[in-house]
Amino acid sequence: MKDLFRSWLDILLIFVPVSVGLELIHADPLAIFICSALAIIPLAGVLGRATEHLSAHVGEGIGGLLNASLGNAAELIIALAALRNGLHDVVKASLTGSILGNILLVLGAAMIAGGVKYERQKFNQTAAGMGASLLLLAAVGLIIPALFHLTAASQGAAVERELSLEIAIVLFAIYVLSLVFSLKTHRHVYTGEEHGPADLGETPWTQTKSTVVLGVVTVLIAVMSETLVGALEPAAHRLGMTQLFVGVILVALVGNAAEHSTAVMVAMKNKMDLALSIAVGSSLQIALLVAPLLVFASYLFGKPLDLIFTPFEVASVTISVLIVGFVAMDGESHWMEGVMLVGVYAMLAVAFFFLPA
Amino acid sequence: MKDLFRSWLDILLIFVPVSVGLELIHADPLAIFICSALAIIPLAGVLGRATEHLSAHVGEGIGGLLNASLGNAAELIIALAALRNGLHDVVKASLTGSILGNILLVLGAAMIAGGVKYERQKFNQTAAGMGASLLLLAAVGLIIPALFHLTAASQGAAVERELSLEIAIVLFAIYVLSLVFSLKTHRHVYTGEEHGPADLGETPWTQTKSTVVLGVVTVLIAVMSETLVGALEPAAHRLGMTQLFVGVILVALVGNAAEHSTAVMVAMKNKMDLALSIAVGSSLQIALLVAPLLVFASYLFGKPLDLIFTPFEVASVTISVLIVGFVAMDGESHWMEGVMLVGVYAMLAVAFFFLPA
Amino acid sequence: MKDLFRSWLDILLIFVPVSVGLELIHADPLAIFICSALAIIPLAGVLGRATEHLSAHVGEGIGGLLNASLGNAAELIIALAALRNGLHDVVKASLTGSILGNILLVLGAAMIAGGVKYERQKFNQTAAGMGASLLLLAAVGLIIPALFHLTAASQGAAVERELSLEIAIVLFAIYVLSLVFSLKTHRHVYTGEEHGPADLGETPWTQTKSTVVLGVVTVLIAVMSETLVGALEPAAHRLGMTQLFVGVILVALVGNAAEHSTAVMVAMKNKMDLALSIAVGSSLQIALLVAPLLVFASYLFGKPLDLIFTPFEVASVTISVLIVGFVAMDGESHWMEGVMLVGVYAMLAVAFFFLPA
Repeated sequence: MKDLFRSWLDILLIFVPVSVGLELIHADPLAIFICSALAIIPLAGVLGRATEHLSAHVGEGIGGLLNASLGNAAELIIALAALRNGLHDVVKASLTGSILGNILLVLGAAMIAGGVKYERQKFNQTAAGMGASLLLLAAVGLIIPALFHLTAASQGAAVERELSLEIAIVLFAIYVLSLVFSLKTHRHVYTGEEHGPADLGETPWTQTKSTVVLGVVTVLIAVMSETLVGALEPAAHRLGMTQLFVGVILVALVGNAAEHSTAVMVAMKNKMDLALSIAVGSSLQIALLVAPLLVFASYLFGKPLDLIFTPFEVASVTISVLIVGFVAMDGESHWMEGVMLVGVYAMLAVAFFFLPA
Repeated sequence: MKDLFRSWLDILLIFVPVSVGLELIHADPLAIFICSALAIIPLAGVLGRATEHLSAHVGEGIGGLLNASLGNAAELIIALAALRNGLHDVVKASLTGSILGNILLVLGAAMIAGGVKYERQKFNQTAAGMGASLLLLAAVGLIIPALFHLTAASQGAAVERELSLEIAIVLFAIYVLSLVFSLKTHRHVYTGEEHGPADLGETPWTQTKSTVVLGVVTVLIAVMSETLVGALEPAAHRLGMTQLFVGVILVALVGNAAEHSTAVMVAMKNKMDLALSIAVGSSLQIALLVAPLLVFASYLFGKPLDLIFTPFEVASVTISVLIVGFVAMDGESHWMEGVMLVGVYAMLAVAFFFLPA
Repeated sequence: MKDLFRSWLDILLIFVPVSVGLELIHADPLAIFICSALAIIPLAGVLGRATEHLSAHVGEGIGGLLNASLGNAAELIIALAALRNGLHDVVKASLTGSILGNILLVLGAAMIAGGVKYERQKFNQTAAGMGASLLLLAAVGLIIPALFHLTAASQGAAVERELSLEIAIVLFAIYVLSLVFSLKTHRHVYTGEEHGPADLGETPWTQTKSTVVLGVVTVLIAVMSETLVGALEPAAHRLGMTQLFVGVILVALVGNAAEHSTAVMVAMKNKMDLALSIAVGSSLQIALLVAPLLVFASYLFGKPLDLIFTPFEVASVTISVLIVGFVAMDGESHWMEGVMLVGVYAMLAVAFFFLPA
């Protein structure tokens, strides 16, 4: 079943050549957008698997680090493509969307899928509490620049960019220290959650195979991301949707598809700790690693990125983090908690749909 | 003592004919307002009891459903009267007030009354956590339209009404699913909290008696609500209060009086699970059932109701929900936690008093 | 080591005569500001110790009350000096700063210092939960007037002052009741956290010595505070900092220095309950006792103080309280939780630095 599902997703790889072809013949941007989105979904999955296989070869410490840093490489590559094209609002919208998608939709779907089979599912309260607290800290990193912008816009864009840069540095430092915590000083808290290739029921790939796959897939995702981002504006226009909605909801769905299917699968095997660490861990990587890296990278492109998100984005992330905290704090889940998370996501998605550009 | 208290409340039934009389002779609106308010208090109590007695006859499943749906029939009828008269702000204020009143004043008073007798009172953490999470989800349903209004008012009232309608649908769906959870798949979590007529120390009424009482009382509440709402504006003016204050504080006190006395009584018998389920359950019914039903009903009246609450109402509900979550999360209560809830209510009431119309 | 540290701090007492001298010769205000700040640090420490020694003589009940009321006497005296000079913004900034400093910096540093030695440190969940709930209530006391000001400024300053006064009365009442809770009805919950002089490894002072020291030190702090406040404005200007930043960050650091060193020391001895009660208790005293007292005192000075804090201050306190709640709710701490608190403090400090006057 699981293998079937994986092969089913892998069929989407056909859209890699299809999108390249459509791009070359300057086809309808909406077709290009859809095909490159569909192409990225299996690529992100393969990227994740290659990272895991490679991690198995380089020892636990470095392996954990690899997993932790490359886990959201697909999101990072998509965002870099948007950044290079000067689409700062799309970059930020895809960050927000990825955070919301992971902690509401991915985690919610996992809790529902698991909760339908098991009456109540337990998970490690210390790890969940730590995740919830880090999510709240990440939310603070979004709240501060937005509030500064609302109350002190008179200070000018240069000050706001400096503030954003310094907050990015703090977030990045917190990320590094959280790795020290989870991979070194308190690794035992997180044991039982590790998922090596064995977990996925596969024979490990050789180191060479993993590295080659990793390289090839990264290049393919980069190409597809360029295609996706290039078609985004006209495609959004054709769909009658704003770029904000496309960035927050659609692009994020594409980037999170791999996490989504894995989290649901492990939840159905009653491994809620793993499901939680995929969903929350992925959100944290976006907020504490990908976002700061994008700010740093933007200086290389000569178009500094600030971290000023719209009030709606900030409020959405904050309330989502609070509700995840409330839901996760008791160390157990059932299907209704999953329904609540998905319900909040649905309400937010409706609002983002109606928000003006 | 309990029977005494009930008869004492029932004496207020004298105000049913009194208000009708005052209305007929076009008496001072303030007198009409006060008398019809006093008349609704015992009627809401009788309505609740009749529902419970009827529930005992129709089997546990349907009985629970009846209880869950008619528990706030009084609030619904008052709000429908205000809706029919086009007093949309009063409708929304009475919803906010009922939520705040239940989770702060009713729950706080119950914790104080119980905490004075018992040093610490325990309650089911799973049920309390679920209640707190659902309250936060309900708060999200209030936050989204208000924030949309603040940041995207330019989209126009039609879009805001559509957004409100879709959020009402999500809230209603969550309510239905929460009934499935608490009455079906996870009923055992909530056992020990059920309160049939036996709990109230009475011999059960016959099914015919319950149904007749239910019908008669519903009609009487509807009549009294019309009288109350009709006198609200001039009465508020005479009292030097705004309609917002009257709706949030006074009308809500009237609608919640029955819950208030029951919650305090059961808390004094150390049944904190029941007190919590009355207070939190009642707030949830208002937010997830009554509010959506009012939105749906408003389309029948041809004056669509939106869910855009004032920033003060939204903030009040949000912080109240958070503080209830903090207080309830640990699975036990003492009198000081009750004092905190009442203290927050007092601060909010003062602010609502000073807020302009 | 501990005695050494105390003597090291006591060396700073030399700055008492130095600041008086500088003041007399009308020296550079920046020098006066720095010297009087350095002088207050050891004085606040001595004040705290004298209070504890005196408490040991007057019996547990009154002793606890003395400790609870005089614990932040230094902050109160500094704020009174600013109040007398009409620097209302500095008064409020120093309150915010003291709350933030205690729950983020002092508590964070204690958790890091303790967490480096001990893998995980446990503390009393009931006391921690109560502290977190009270902090959230205190935050509500800040949110309400600020939100009122933002949405109903048209009501005029007189109404806002009346609202502030009534909220101050509620906060003060909550403080008194929380003392009844922690010193009387639920004292046993807090045992194991008490710290008499014995705890500090000293022979108790006589009652006369304690009283004399208390009197002398109070006068000295009052004099130094006048000097500090008098030099604040020109010193801030010379440093290129706003009065807001100086009030929130610098003055608060001075006022909290004693709590800071004590909390870190006890955390390193694995007494996290005590560290938590110092940090959280100190914040609560500022919010529930010092702030209301300042409002009351301001009426004596004929310049009524309102409780309208800036949106940034309100948001900072609210999110800090939430993150402390998330961190403390599970009843245990490790170094990474300390890092998170300090990280949030760092981000807020950066923002306060850039905020306009």
